[in-house]
Amino acid sequence: MAKKDNIPNSASKITRDEFPGSKKIYVEGELHKDIRVAMREITLTDSKPMFTDGEFKKKANAPVTVYDTSGPYTDPSIEIDVRKGIPAIRKQWILDRGDVEELDGISSEYGKERLENSELNHLRFQHLQKPLRAKDGANVTQMHYAKKGIITPEMEYVAIRENQRLQEYKGTINQHPGQGFGANIPEVITPEFVRSEIAAGRAVLPNNINHPETEPMIIGRNFLVKINANIGNSAVTSSIEEEVEKTVWATRWGADTVMDLSTGKNIHETREWVIRNSPVPIGTVPIYQALEKVNGKAEDLTWELFRDTLIEQAEQGVDYFTIHAGVLLRYVPMTANRVTGIVSRGGSIMAKWCLAHHKENFLYTHFEDICEIMKQYDVGFSLGDGLRPGSIADANDRAQFAELETLGELTKIAWEHDVQVMIEGPGHVPLHMIKENMDKELRDCFEAPFYTLGPLTQDIAPGYDHITSAIGAANIGWYGTAMLCYVTPKEHLGLPNRDDVKEGVITYKIAAHAADLAKGFPGSQIRDNAMSLARFEFRWEDQFNLSLDPDTARAYHDETLPSDNAKVAHFCSMCGPHFCSMKITQDVRDYAKEHGLNDQEALEEGMKEKMDEFKAKGGELYLEPEKLQ
Amino acid sequence: MAKKDNIPNSASKITRDEFPGSKKIYVEGELHKDIRVAMREITLTDSKPMFTDGEFKKKANAPVTVYDTSGPYTDPSIEIDVRKGIPAIRKQWILDRGDVEELDGISSEYGKERLENSELNHLRFQHLQKPLRAKDGANVTQMHYAKKGIITPEMEYVAIRENQRLQEYKGTINQHPGQGFGANIPEVITPEFVRSEIAAGRAVLPNNINHPETEPMIIGRNFLVKINANIGNSAVTSSIEEEVEKTVWATRWGADTVMDLSTGKNIHETREWVIRNSPVPIGTVPIYQALEKVNGKAEDLTWELFRDTLIEQAEQGVDYFTIHAGVLLRYVPMTANRVTGIVSRGGSIMAKWCLAHHKENFLYTHFEDICEIMKQYDVGFSLGDGLRPGSIADANDRAQFAELETLGELTKIAWEHDVQVMIEGPGHVPLHMIKENMDKELRDCFEAPFYTLGPLTQDIAPGYDHITSAIGAANIGWYGTAMLCYVTPKEHLGLPNRDDVKEGVITYKIAAHAADLAKGFPGSQIRDNAMSLARFEFRWEDQFNLSLDPDTARAYHDETLPSDNAKVAHFCSMCGPHFCSMKITQDVRDYAKEHGLNDQEALEEGMKEKMDEFKAKGGELYLEPEKLQ
Repeated sequence: MAKKDNIPNSASKITRDEFPGSKKIYVEGELHKDIRVAMREITLTDSKPMFTDGEFKKKANAPVTVYDTSGPYTDPSIEIDVRKGIPAIRKQWILDRGDVEELDGISSEYGKERLENSELNHLRFQHLQKPLRAKDGANVTQMHYAKKGIITPEMEYVAIRENQRLQEYKGTINQHPGQGFGANIPEVITPEFVRSEIAAGRAVLPNNINHPETEPMIIGRNFLVKINANIGNSAVTSSIEEEVEKTVWATRWGADTVMDLSTGKNIHETREWVIRNSPVPIGTVPIYQALEKVNGKAEDLTWELFRDTLIEQAEQGVDYFTIHAGVLLRYVPMTANRVTGIVSRGGSIMAKWCLAHHKENFLYTHFEDICEIMKQYDVGFSLGDGLRPGSIADANDRAQFAELETLGELTKIAWEHDVQVMIEGPGHVPLHMIKENMDKELRDCFEAPFYTLGPLTQDIAPGYDHITSAIGAANIGWYGTAMLCYVTPKEHLGLPNRDDVKEGVITYKIAAHAADLAKGFPGSQIRDNAMSLARFEFRWEDQFNLSLDPDTARAYHDETLPSDNAKVAHFCSMCGPHFCSMKITQDVRDYAKEHGLNDQEALEEGMKEKMDEFKAKGGELYLEPEKLQ
Repeated sequence: MAKKDNIPNSASKITRDEFPGSKKIYVEGELHKDIRVAMREITLTDSKPMFTDGEFKKKANAPVTVYDTSGPYTDPSIEIDVRKGIPAIRKQWILDRGDVEELDGISSEYGKERLENSELNHLRFQHLQKPLRAKDGANVTQMHYAKKGIITPEMEYVAIRENQRLQEYKGTINQHPGQGFGANIPEVITPEFVRSEIAAGRAVLPNNINHPETEPMIIGRNFLVKINANIGNSAVTSSIEEEVEKTVWATRWGADTVMDLSTGKNIHETREWVIRNSPVPIGTVPIYQALEKVNGKAEDLTWELFRDTLIEQAEQGVDYFTIHAGVLLRYVPMTANRVTGIVSRGGSIMAKWCLAHHKENFLYTHFEDICEIMKQYDVGFSLGDGLRPGSIADANDRAQFAELETLGELTKIAWEHDVQVMIEGPGHVPLHMIKENMDKELRDCFEAPFYTLGPLTQDIAPGYDHITSAIGAANIGWYGTAMLCYVTPKEHLGLPNRDDVKEGVITYKIAAHAADLAKGFPGSQIRDNAMSLARFEFRWEDQFNLSLDPDTARAYHDETLPSDNAKVAHFCSMCGPHFCSMKITQDVRDYAKEHGLNDQEALEEGMKEKMDEFKAKGGELYLEPEKLQ
């Protein structure tokens, strides 16, 4: 058994550490009592007496609840054996609807071949379940239910999840109003609002009936901005074990969905392991695997082979498919004079196929056939931007926008089948040309959720493209993009390792959060406010625990001031022990409070009279760190 | 001698490596023949034959010239001894104007004390020069010359520098037009344009007559966006030697100015070493040193002591002073109910002084006295935002904007003295509230250059605040901010080390470049286009050399595919050897070219007829890597 085919065993190193100062909580549903929405609650320490005397501040600080994508891995009460997969929390909801049937076996010819190949036994997931499929004539998509006015448990789950126990913070939020560019975000996300957004096509709830392990989540511009992390082996590197841990690792840090972009061998088996252990929706680009099946020769691809691949993956539980159905034969020549031509793998595969056969893209000509498959499993479309620009020079050109218009046409067709749709977007776009992408997408694709890669705002910083793209991602998220596909520091240079995945995810959580604040998503400022207050009051542990990455925050702090003493000190290493601006501000406030000056006018008046008194008291309240213990 | 007071010697490790594939070039002036503007020229390799046949591409690729802040350190022909300092390239220009006199010795009482203290001999710069000062009644500021219609050598230098040999790229640039929010950038930056912008106060050219080692640079919204890096020891860490190398290190990666924010001991001596070895303007916050002189007791500060500090630093060669003259007594109570109060050190020092004395800020009441000093040395103002918000919650509040209005009032006064002025800006501001800062600054401060810290777009990512702030910085740079003060990953947590300084500088070069592209600064897309073409043609060495950080780009690439073979291979590790989208695009283009199809219409027509021929040839042109050697 080759080392790179290593499969997980119970002793595998799958990250299961809890977050510091945090615990998993579950919020129950109201419409559906069996819903338990997983969240993370960060416990805060009390404020020290110097910040709490009198009425200004309270001693105890309420815990902060944050959106949690890490699944059961961060709940120590749940036993996990990756050989069996994580709990199938949605299974009963799916069965209860009475519109699915369990098949005797998998339908895909290729899948059967793999199953029958005993040489693959050592790679195979050991607890394969029989696939579910819609009963004859049934449509099991969340959009279908939504249009019929049904609020599914999945819909209520995401409503609760998006609210993050917001009601508990009422009156304390003090958030800046946002600027939404046509977004229409209510003060409270209700299950009915979720339903109506899905019915209108403005949001998708990726939710394959064969991936009951997912915690439902929603992607739409009137919800929190989501991020996707890509994983995937390639012919050059990686193993099954690494891919499973990468998924766990990516969701730990905040990936809302994961795309498995594997292009190497054993794609089928790797995917099964990933899906069975993933608490978030999994997306794929089926044409990648189809290409492997024809040994990399794009011109040998056929609709029949692709169709079998779709069914193979749908029955494994893939939640959304990137389909490059907008790369039309007549658009291909539009790329000939670009600086970087076609940079999308899927786009170039289809371009090559079109040229070789001089026929229209079979994904386009068979689009209704694809919809028929999708709706039997509730696989969502992520309509691929195969002609996205690969350089600043090629941004917003005719090839790109022609394809986008076609994606709009296809969106309408998918919606006639009640199949959920997202639209993929670029790519490389300078800052001032980003909004045109969003505006055109909303107009031409009828407000279907936009799902963009970055965009990268320049070409000159390989090694830092997580940053060049986070700038673009924050902006396009603010303008209305619903999900941001991460970019790692290795973009354009190599495959991301574990550290790169984390760096990419955290960077994109930052971009998404910048967008949420700018959109004014309800309650999105709670965590910032808690952090800022902890910062002001020198509650270092709380600062670490409230961070997107507590480990790094703590490590950086400890690099300069490692002692436990320093973590309760009323200074930090930036200014040293003899001067601290936060401390001086506290003097200002103490002075105001001490003299009963609660509003500005009184304060100004009071200062005139009480100045001497203040000075007589010394005006220097600094405490040596050792006295704070 | 304590280890932390280590001073540089000739064997000190000061970074002097050349950039790979690059050489230093010097462009001569036209108006002033003794001007030699330093730039970096990146040599590119030839395109491989498969990309060059016929008329589509040329074999040889023109070198790319980039803006270079690294000074003489990257020119191996210049001998540098940090004990003597770097060449004083501007000394003769200053003397030639005939309006300065050499003093017998330094004027500052404190400076004299330090000079006479033999215990400091081991720390002292060994080749101290006598300071220059304006002759009685003379005004030696660049603004003064500009208003009189004089184009100084400094002005011509920056005009040449901003153009980056643009004329050589004429006809090949193919840049997207920008969106400038009222910026007014000409196609060619002329010396006269530089003069007029300085005269109007829309740009500053920091240029102390006692810092003749600087290569002139300009800060204004109709020029390239600049970045500042902070260095500085504190009571907790650092040594003189580290500070000098930090300056060299920061400018190597692109810092346009450096602020020395030292708060520890031996500030005076450290600063001398830094200035004598800095090819970029040095800024300081004089109140920091003044506070050290009164042992950290803000209420003991006096105008006389501060005045002596200004003169001390002006005669050492500090190019701009951050002066918190807008923190007025009546604004201080406005901060009492903020979440994070006053977070600026300078702001809180002055607030404390105002409260303790119940007097107006002496920096405000003595503002004209300060102007009198500044114009004798050409020290510029960086009017400090002492009341900037330290959290998202406090963004754009009345305290912040009241101070900004006062900074506008002070700008007018400084300009009456022909003293150059920049305005400092926040801070922590969510994405949608950033533009209000820029608009208000332009209006209330009469278009004086804005110089902002970030802004950070959120509070929840300590350890990644270079990224939270780069998002804000790119946007505010696009809106019109002239210089961006960097933030390192250690912000809020500790003092930056060498790696943090580099990470912060590169991140801010990214933000500045995103803004330059969005503003449409002439020629700013040249490097991107060269990179993109190198990417398309798999010229890996050129990609590394064109990068903002060639070392990291190369290291990341080599992590996955370390062999030299891979660097000329027509694939990369992202897709592996069996499939490459760039390669397929080349097939599309080859096909078009081979069949004489140069425009789209002909191409579409041709495809219909020649499809079979293409397919017969195989449609798969992949070359095994070993065949490429």
